[in-house]
Amino acid sequence: VLLLAPRVIALLTDFGYADPYVASMKGVILSINGVARIVDVSHGVPKFDIRSASYVLYCAYKYFPEGTVFVVVVDPGVGTERRSIVVKTRRYFFVGPDNGVLIPAARDDGIEKVVNVTNRKYMRREVSHTFHGRDIFAPVAAHISRGVPVDEFGEAITDYVVPSFAEPVISGRRAEGEVIYIDGFGNAATNIRVEHVERLGLKYGDEVKVVIEREGEEKYYRWRFLPSFGYAGKGRPLLLINSEGFLEIAVNLGNASRELGISIGDRVIVEPL
Amino acid sequence: VLLLAPRVIALLTDFGYADPYVASMKGVILSINGVARIVDVSHGVPKFDIRSASYVLYCAYKYFPEGTVFVVVVDPGVGTERRSIVVKTRRYFFVGPDNGVLIPAARDDGIEKVVNVTNRKYMRREVSHTFHGRDIFAPVAAHISRGVPVDEFGEAITDYVVPSFAEPVISGRRAEGEVIYIDGFGNAATNIRVEHVERLGLKYGDEVKVVIEREGEEKYYRWRFLPSFGYAGKGRPLLLINSEGFLEIAVNLGNASRELGISIGDRVIVEPL
Amino acid sequence: VLLLAPRVIALLTDFGYADPYVASMKGVILSINGVARIVDVSHGVPKFDIRSASYVLYCAYKYFPEGTVFVVVVDPGVGTERRSIVVKTRRYFFVGPDNGVLIPAARDDGIEKVVNVTNRKYMRREVSHTFHGRDIFAPVAAHISRGVPVDEFGEAITDYVVPSFAEPVISGRRAEGEVIYIDGFGNAATNIRVEHVERLGLKYGDEVKVVIEREGEEKYYRWRFLPSFGYAGKGRPLLLINSEGFLEIAVNLGNASRELGISIGDRVIVEPL
Repeated sequence: VLLLAPRVIALLTDFGYADPYVASMKGVILSINGVARIVDVSHGVPKFDIRSASYVLYCAYKYFPEGTVFVVVVDPGVGTERRSIVVKTRRYFFVGPDNGVLIPAARDDGIEKVVNVTNRKYMRREVSHTFHGRDIFAPVAAHISRGVPVDEFGEAITDYVVPSFAEPVISGRRAEGEVIYIDGFGNAATNIRVEHVERLGLKYGDEVKVVIEREGEEKYYRWRFLPSFGYAGKGRPLLLINSEGFLEIAVNLGNASRELGISIGDRVIVEPL
Repeated sequence: VLLLAPRVIALLTDFGYADPYVASMKGVILSINGVARIVDVSHGVPKFDIRSASYVLYCAYKYFPEGTVFVVVVDPGVGTERRSIVVKTRRYFFVGPDNGVLIPAARDDGIEKVVNVTNRKYMRREVSHTFHGRDIFAPVAAHISRGVPVDEFGEAITDYVVPSFAEPVISGRRAEGEVIYIDGFGNAATNIRVEHVERLGLKYGDEVKVVIEREGEEKYYRWRFLPSFGYAGKGRPLLLINSEGFLEIAVNLGNASRELGISIGDRVIVEPL
Repeated sequence: VLLLAPRVIALLTDFGYADPYVASMKGVILSINGVARIVDVSHGVPKFDIRSASYVLYCAYKYFPEGTVFVVVVDPGVGTERRSIVVKTRRYFFVGPDNGVLIPAARDDGIEKVVNVTNRKYMRREVSHTFHGRDIFAPVAAHISRGVPVDEFGEAITDYVVPSFAEPVISGRRAEGEVIYIDGFGNAATNIRVEHVERLGLKYGDEVKVVIEREGEEKYYRWRFLPSFGYAGKGRPLLLINSEGFLEIAVNLGNASRELGISIGDRVIVEPL
């Protein structure tokens, strides 16, 4: 028996799980393409937090089947002049506001074209001032999933918003980065990636000097760089490469963010001993 | 290639996202109709809150494909004598308890028939006292999605419960309503709708006198009526028509409910200046 | 029109609803089997709580269609030496860590075989130290859903971990058990099941002496055993058989856990009067 795999539409918003907004988007999508496969990436990213949303999208997108259409609605500028865009990459499509949220994942896959969505034919007849997720992004994604070419939606642009994501600064055996995401376990991901860690020459078991700084206040630690949580004692902090390739501060069977007082945006300096 | 769109079954409960209850309902549905398309409307409405659930259903239902079967389990009276009903409307089916929760959405679409579900053939063999969502509503919805006519489930009734949703009082250029929903952003929706706002003669940019009253205590404000959040300064309150057509109190990039101390049920008087 | 029902893959994790982890697993599954039907059992069980996860799985699994593949990722030992297993039961497949979490449900259905997953052919090419849900369990489940026989994944074992779930002690008309789950309504399920209640000779309406004990402190109550919440007065405690067949402590239209101060692990002694 042959079953054909329908096109996947993956949704990422800051709408939470109580309100009707996500359901309205799904209804719009299924009314245009009744066989689309809708998958929730997350609706629980912090509200208006473009950086967290970018990180979640970056982590998850690459595991999806080729041709997946990602729709992101983290959109503090809705109703103002910010543009709506479709990004076509090597393997995927990304639909959302032109505020930078789509770009880290799209760049990682390889951007082929960015289109400014202006063709009202592919929007809902009435476009509200407050809910472009339902009135523009959802119908555009549904039409892409039915095979409409991206050029149909509007003109190609090159001046799309690129977020100023801080790259870590590597100098000799010292890396200076920042906390860019805190997950539900309290693990604090930094923007120092596995390739930077390799340049520092860090090996499993090494002791590391770590400085965490916020608003001029600095805390000093000495932790081990380990392959995974279970290698540290219960309740003990460690450094590890998380499953997405980022250097992460964690506490085995504990909550690093809470127990160590770490927040998104904290500066992190890492120096092997 | 032709893929046939399966019938959508959309679920709305107050079960939250941790417990096994929603999954049990989905298992029951898929055991009866393995190709049904199940969509979550929300499982995060406040527990036992029929009014909030009605609002969420009202907002979301109309975007779904024709023939969608909505199942609502917000059911403080489960296990007592309250009836189980199926409402057939112009374009949809609604399944749930006879406590009023289905009626605002069903009326908006146009009620054709309400059936008191009594035919045990379409229920699970053992019906528990505490979980009609799994034992009655889910299997009935699955059978509807397979084409069973609504008359099969029981007798038509006309004395179903209609909730006493307050309509706002409009007198001259003054509207008196109440807060009926607070969303995850803290926006406070009132029962004053776009058609009432038009009768007040309100135009974008107008200043409005707003009185918010709870338990005899009144607060007075002067806010602008604006097309969307971004037209107000950061952290500034405003009035707008939300994406569902309700007059809403919001704070741009803030939380109106928390910052202004607004709760569901607060009375709201609106008067253009 | 004939639509073929695709195989269901049901996911249960402690990842919560904000992080990208669940989405990554779904992407991996859909990349291997684009027509698999993915259903969320729950991602909201308390983190690292194998007992709660076991209870949720036990409650929900039996309602799913035959052949469903359950994937459970509640895995405090990830990255250490604990094994990955597939359990084939009479009607289902269970995939997850060998830490006991799968066993109560699997035993209830009837275990036919337990396989230690070692065949890297069915894992992702790179297996991280921290995320076996994505790198082992998800791809294994997707391959099972495509018909790969369980023997393909590794050797059969018999020394899998069996959790020491306490059975209640019944002596005469006295049952001594414990609280094993607290749901989102605050209802406290005990490990005393309907068959134990029958042995006590309890009938609806009977008064029952209940002792709740934690850390040496005992509280004494006298409650009625009733068919459902609505039979108790508003705000009044009661005992009932919950929809999963467990004796449960509840408060009608209230929150038993909060109002009575009940926690998971509290000992519960029940004696009809």
